[in-house]
Amino acid sequence: MAMSLQFAPLRGRYRAGQLTPVETIDEVYRRIDVRGTDHVWTGLADRVTVREQAHALAQRIGELDALPLYGLPFGVKDNVHVAGVPTTCGCPGYTTVPTQTAEAVRRAIAAGAIFIGKQSLDQFATGLNGTRTLGGHCLNTFDPEIIPGGSSSGSGVAVAAGLVSFSLGSDTGGSGRVPAALNNIVGLRPTIGLVSTRGMVYNNRMFDCIPVFALTVDDAFTVLEAIAGRDIDDPVSRADADGIPLKPDFPQTFRFAIPERLEFFGDKQSAADFERAVAGLSSLGGTPCVFDFEPFHEAGQLIFESALVAERAASYGEVLDSCAQDLVPAVASILTRARRYSAVEAFQAHYRLSALRRQVASMLDGIDVVVTPTVPRPFRVSEMLADPITRNAEVGFYTYGVGPLDLCAVSVPSRLRDDGLPFGISLVARAGAEASLRALGARFEQWTGQQSGARQMQ
Amino acid sequence: MAMSLQFAPLRGRYRAGQLTPVETIDEVYRRIDVRGTDHVWTGLADRVTVREQAHALAQRIGELDALPLYGLPFGVKDNVHVAGVPTTCGCPGYTTVPTQTAEAVRRAIAAGAIFIGKQSLDQFATGLNGTRTLGGHCLNTFDPEIIPGGSSSGSGVAVAAGLVSFSLGSDTGGSGRVPAALNNIVGLRPTIGLVSTRGMVYNNRMFDCIPVFALTVDDAFTVLEAIAGRDIDDPVSRADADGIPLKPDFPQTFRFAIPERLEFFGDKQSAADFERAVAGLSSLGGTPCVFDFEPFHEAGQLIFESALVAERAASYGEVLDSCAQDLVPAVASILTRARRYSAVEAFQAHYRLSALRRQVASMLDGIDVVVTPTVPRPFRVSEMLADPITRNAEVGFYTYGVGPLDLCAVSVPSRLRDDGLPFGISLVARAGAEASLRALGARFEQWTGQQSGARQMQ
Repeated sequence: MAMSLQFAPLRGRYRAGQLTPVETIDEVYRRIDVRGTDHVWTGLADRVTVREQAHALAQRIGELDALPLYGLPFGVKDNVHVAGVPTTCGCPGYTTVPTQTAEAVRRAIAAGAIFIGKQSLDQFATGLNGTRTLGGHCLNTFDPEIIPGGSSSGSGVAVAAGLVSFSLGSDTGGSGRVPAALNNIVGLRPTIGLVSTRGMVYNNRMFDCIPVFALTVDDAFTVLEAIAGRDIDDPVSRADADGIPLKPDFPQTFRFAIPERLEFFGDKQSAADFERAVAGLSSLGGTPCVFDFEPFHEAGQLIFESALVAERAASYGEVLDSCAQDLVPAVASILTRARRYSAVEAFQAHYRLSALRRQVASMLDGIDVVVTPTVPRPFRVSEMLADPITRNAEVGFYTYGVGPLDLCAVSVPSRLRDDGLPFGISLVARAGAEASLRALGARFEQWTGQQSGARQMQ
Repeated sequence: MAMSLQFAPLRGRYRAGQLTPVETIDEVYRRIDVRGTDHVWTGLADRVTVREQAHALAQRIGELDALPLYGLPFGVKDNVHVAGVPTTCGCPGYTTVPTQTAEAVRRAIAAGAIFIGKQSLDQFATGLNGTRTLGGHCLNTFDPEIIPGGSSSGSGVAVAAGLVSFSLGSDTGGSGRVPAALNNIVGLRPTIGLVSTRGMVYNNRMFDCIPVFALTVDDAFTVLEAIAGRDIDDPVSRADADGIPLKPDFPQTFRFAIPERLEFFGDKQSAADFERAVAGLSSLGGTPCVFDFEPFHEAGQLIFESALVAERAASYGEVLDSCAQDLVPAVASILTRARRYSAVEAFQAHYRLSALRRQVASMLDGIDVVVTPTVPRPFRVSEMLADPITRNAEVGFYTYGVGPLDLCAVSVPSRLRDDGLPFGISLVARAGAEASLRALGARFEQWTGQQSGARQMQ
């Protein structure tokens, strides 16, 4: 069996002196080299420097317990800054070389993690499918004809393919969960303001998040514990970010809500898989009930179909003037539209979102967790390319609303489909309720009884 | 001496059986009638109905202790809804007759207060001087040639002139404090979201407040206690609105900050008055220090000189199409400009404001209260009319930034000027720090040793 990059086995071997961070890094580079041009990376860190860092870490093995991410190789989506490494957002003309590392990345490195490289994405993280790239996209780890999921495509694939122990991405409308579901791994979108977003290229600064991709729920939350916390230099940082409990905590019997009307866009297999997952949750002590998904749907639509989309133009709209030829058509058309909204429309959209947040907060009274499929069905690359806007919106059906509504979520692999493809469910909870996602997510993982990640890694 | 409408004497006489709410109301109507057309009111409640309400209250004298505003006559600025009474915002063409009473007004009435009428204002509460009206403005209670202050001009004058015990106004950039300072009364701007703003015509919904005008700090806070609290139907309502302490609480020795560079627009008398007030605060146990006022100034400028002004157009911009002939020129020009901003500019202004909030929050570390003049100097009506935009901006020099920066404030009368005009100072504190404003405001009131309100009432 190939060496797993899961946290516990890796740290166990470090502790036992059976492995050093340098050996881990060398194995990671071997795997990267074997894959060749896989479109997972937009840029890799200098190997000599990384080996030196790994070597320095090896000297600090005595600090293993104080460094929760000791010796864990990780990647960063290429819209999050790492000092000295170009940030491209998948758009060559946009490329900048930041002088400061994003606070979340800085904290991961301070906790002992080893930065390997920048990961590919739907251009400007605008998309949920992974094909909105120039010059090729990275492949789904189960079936190359299925989309890898986006926008954090490289971040999800890298974890599933065993190239890194975890990835840090970005999530506005599902980018931190969709690639997880489509590659059989865990994608954790934390509460807005729990993890600093200082040092990233924003889409919707007011609800962008830095999510974690990992092989297990516990691994994802171990990273979250290391990178979460108050950042007084980030205006969106929650004042109570240091006080949100992150250790697993959830009642043995609980009430979970599923959408009254489910949507699988014609895929009966996904419908059956979700039913199976719901039965699994019931067997874990859950009582299902239904809720009206409409406010989630409407909140999600606001991302692209209201003036909220203008936040993208505020963040990087100048690319329309400076390097339009480097834009994928879907991104160019969204940005062009984004610039046309008026300030009056921006405030109206903001008010509507506030009202929806209030409505959903009331609706969730007495409900411990909301459960949905993460992606309605697997989408083929060919159908995505044939109708990129319609198909992309379908991918995000369940994930879009979570961020705008100020909720937190984790996508956890459910049992593989009969056709061998992965299927993920999303556990969604109130802002600050990460502890319940961690507890229930881990229980659900046990129920599936499966290894996560790509097939060849199992 | 004329009957004071201050809370304690009025309630004392009710309790002793020396007075009934009906007699109070009759006295109020007598005073209103004596004044004739004073432009304080845009509409009065039906007198027969009000007398019936007062009579019903008289039967409930046993509930005096349970009704903190028992038998207190009050007025409401005419941009806050009272069911069945027209809301004009000072613009006849806009007039609507609301079916629901604003939540703050509803709470005041539930606490025993008696609604008398709707009060005049700078049209759409857009102005700080009180002259932006059609057909005449209400007069400053000290000198008719001085502006009454706005936008809650009628609300301030009514309290100072002894027509009501308190008024509820609106405050975006100073409208709840400027008329207080210019009429020798107290104006209390609570923390955003502490008092529900549901049922008002918004200017900047994200930081509009319903302030209280009263003769004393304690009276103003008694009203605040009655109207504050969580309103789940108001998206801006603070989740912890029920938990913010409102009883006086402030250290005996404290540190207060005054702007490093003070601005009185050439008025040496105001400069001397402020110096005297600072000496008073020092004698009360305060140690002064200076702070950089620039972020306050910039935050204040965002109200009219950034896309934030578009919130006004989102709220009532349709008047430009439906009744432009009813608009005062300053309001029409602001609304016209407001419509031109783009959504990108709206988000940029929002981000800038977030950054300023963060900067000021750090700046206030170790400072108990910020102290400024409320108005730099008294302005004459004639000079205001000659250059309405420039002069109005000068009026708001100290007050504008408080709301956008998410702070709370109370304007308290300082000692009268040598020329007999009133002079008020503003105590400004962090969101939720009302208890300190109440304690220090009351101490400062004692230091002045003066009766508040108009001269003729003293």
